[in-house]
Amino acid sequence: MSTNQDQEGANYQYKIESLIQPIRDDLMSGAAEQALRAITLYQALTAMVKDDSLDEAKETLIVASKALVDCQPAMAPLFQLANQVLLASDQANDVPSLIDKVDQALTAFEKRLCDSASKIADLAYDLIEPGGLVFAYSFSSTVVSCLLNARARGRYFRVVTTEARPSMEGRKLASRLAAGNIEVIYTFDNAMGLVLGNCCAAFMGCDCIASPGVVNKVGSWALAIACRELNVPLYAFSGTEKFVSDERMFEFEKHERPGNEVWDAAPKGVAVLNHQFDLVPFNLVSGLVSEDGILGESDVQKYASRIDVHEALRI
Amino acid sequence: MSTNQDQEGANYQYKIESLIQPIRDDLMSGAAEQALRAITLYQALTAMVKDDSLDEAKETLIVASKALVDCQPAMAPLFQLANQVLLASDQANDVPSLIDKVDQALTAFEKRLCDSASKIADLAYDLIEPGGLVFAYSFSSTVVSCLLNARARGRYFRVVTTEARPSMEGRKLASRLAAGNIEVIYTFDNAMGLVLGNCCAAFMGCDCIASPGVVNKVGSWALAIACRELNVPLYAFSGTEKFVSDERMFEFEKHERPGNEVWDAAPKGVAVLNHQFDLVPFNLVSGLVSEDGILGESDVQKYASRIDVHEALRI
Repeated sequence: MSTNQDQEGANYQYKIESLIQPIRDDLMSGAAEQALRAITLYQALTAMVKDDSLDEAKETLIVASKALVDCQPAMAPLFQLANQVLLASDQANDVPSLIDKVDQALTAFEKRLCDSASKIADLAYDLIEPGGLVFAYSFSSTVVSCLLNARARGRYFRVVTTEARPSMEGRKLASRLAAGNIEVIYTFDNAMGLVLGNCCAAFMGCDCIASPGVVNKVGSWALAIACRELNVPLYAFSGTEKFVSDERMFEFEKHERPGNEVWDAAPKGVAVLNHQFDLVPFNLVSGLVSEDGILGESDVQKYASRIDVHEALRI
Repeated sequence: MSTNQDQEGANYQYKIESLIQPIRDDLMSGAAEQALRAITLYQALTAMVKDDSLDEAKETLIVASKALVDCQPAMAPLFQLANQVLLASDQANDVPSLIDKVDQALTAFEKRLCDSASKIADLAYDLIEPGGLVFAYSFSSTVVSCLLNARARGRYFRVVTTEARPSMEGRKLASRLAAGNIEVIYTFDNAMGLVLGNCCAAFMGCDCIASPGVVNKVGSWALAIACRELNVPLYAFSGTEKFVSDERMFEFEKHERPGNEVWDAAPKGVAVLNHQFDLVPFNLVSGLVSEDGILGESDVQKYASRIDVHEALRI
C-alpha cells in the first residue's frame, strides 16, 4: 500500500468514526430512531466511495457496518440494516451499481420502518378494551405510539406501568402517556402481581427476536409468567426489522452494564449484577404484533429461519 | 374526671405515644426485633400503672395495645404479643397480680421468640446445600439469623438477593450477610428470573399467616410463581407467633404507604400505588419453617383455626 493509500485509509476511518460517534453516544433514542440515523450514515458513505474501486468500496461498507453494529450491540434494526446493505452490495459488479443497490436497500428499509409503525398501531387499537386497563412494561416507542394513537382515535382506557429498574424507563413511559391525556397508574416492579390481575392485556416492546424467543428489558420474563398465572394476554410489539440470528440474540442476552448503576455503595463481599435483558420464550407470549399481523409461535419460527446473515456480520 | 386526672390522662397518652413512636418510625427492622422492642414498652407501662386502680391499669394496657397494633398494622407478633398481654391482664383481680400476669406473658413470649429462632435455624441448616446458592428475599431477621448461623457452623454457600423496592430492605440483608462473611450477589427485583434458576432454595420471611396463606413483603408472590416455574423450593420462615385471624390478615393486605415514597415527582395524571404486602397462597410454598417443624398446608390450617382474639383487638 502506498503512502497515499495509507493516508486515504486513515482518512476514511476517521470519517466513519465521526459518522458513528453520534449513534454510539445516544443512549436515549429508540432503535427505530437510531436506524433512521444510520440510513443517513450509509448515504454519506456511498457518496464517499464513488471514485474508489469496487473492492475498496465494499471494504469501506464492511468496516462501517461492523462498527455500526458494534457501537450499539443491543439494537437489532441496526444489525438488520447493516446486513441488508452488505447483502445488497454483494450483488454489484461495479461501483455505480453498488451505490444503486445500497440505495435501494436503504429506501426499502426506511419504507418498511415507517409502514410498520402505522400497521402495528392499527392492530394494537383492537387489542385495547374500551374502558379497560392495559399493562405496559418499560419504555418502547412502538408501544407508546400505539397507546397515544388509540387515545387520539377516541378510545378511552387507563394504563398501569412499573418503574423498570434500574433505568426507570417506566417513568418516561408514564410521563409521555400522561402528557397525551392517558390516565396512568404507576407502581414498583415487584408489585406487578397486585395490579396485573385487573388488566385486559399487557404490552411490551422488544429489543430483538430470534427462534428461542423475544429479548426485551429485564423483567419481561417475570411479567410473562405473571400474565400466564393471571390469564392476562401478553403481546410483544415489534416490526420484523428486529429479527436477528440466534447467535446475535445470545450476544444481546449477555449484555451487562456497570453494577454501580444499581447500587453505588455496595459493601465488600457483595457482587452487583446489572443484566439488561430477559429472554421470553414464545410459549409465554400471546402474539407478536408486527407489520405482517399478529404473529404466533410458528410464524415467528419461519421469519427466524429466513435470516441470511452476511459473512462479515457473523460472530 | 378532675383536672389532675385529665392532666394525668394526657400525660399517659403522651408517654404511650413516646414509647410507640420509635416502633412506628422504624421501617427497616423485622417483626421479631420490633416485638422485642414492644416487650420493653410493656415493661415500661407496667412500671407506669403500678399506683393506678385495676380498671385504670387495664384501660391503659388496652389503649397502648390498640395503639401498638395500629402503629405497625402489618406486624403479626405485635398483634400476638398485645393479644397475649390483654388476655393475661383479664385474669388479674388487682394491680400487683396484673403486673405479675403481664410479666409472665412477656417472659413467655420472649422465650418463645428466642427458642423459636434457634429451632428454626437448625431446620434451615439442613435446607442449605453445601456449596449451593440460596435466594433470600427482602429483610427478615429470622432468615438472616438462620443464614449467619449456618455460616458460623461452617456451611459454605452464597446468597442471591434483590433490592426489595421501594424500601430497599435487600441492601440491609446484603450488608448484614456480607459482614457475616457470606458472599452475596445482588440485583434488582425484576432481574429475579435471571438468578433464581441457579438456586437450590429460596427463603423468605413472613409478616403474618392465616388460613388463605402467607403475607409478606410485596414481590413475594412474583418470587413464588418464579420459583414454581424454575423448580426452586420456596420456604417461608416464621415462628408460630405470626399466626393471625383471617380478618386481621385482610387488614395486612390492604396496608398502603404514601405514593411519593415510590416516585416523589410523579406528573399530573399519574397515580402512584405503594402497597406493602403480597399474599402467597400455601400451594405456592414448599413449607413453613417454624419452631414446630416444617409445616405443610394442612398443619397450617390447624394453627390458623386455633387463635383466640381479645375483644379489644377484634376488628
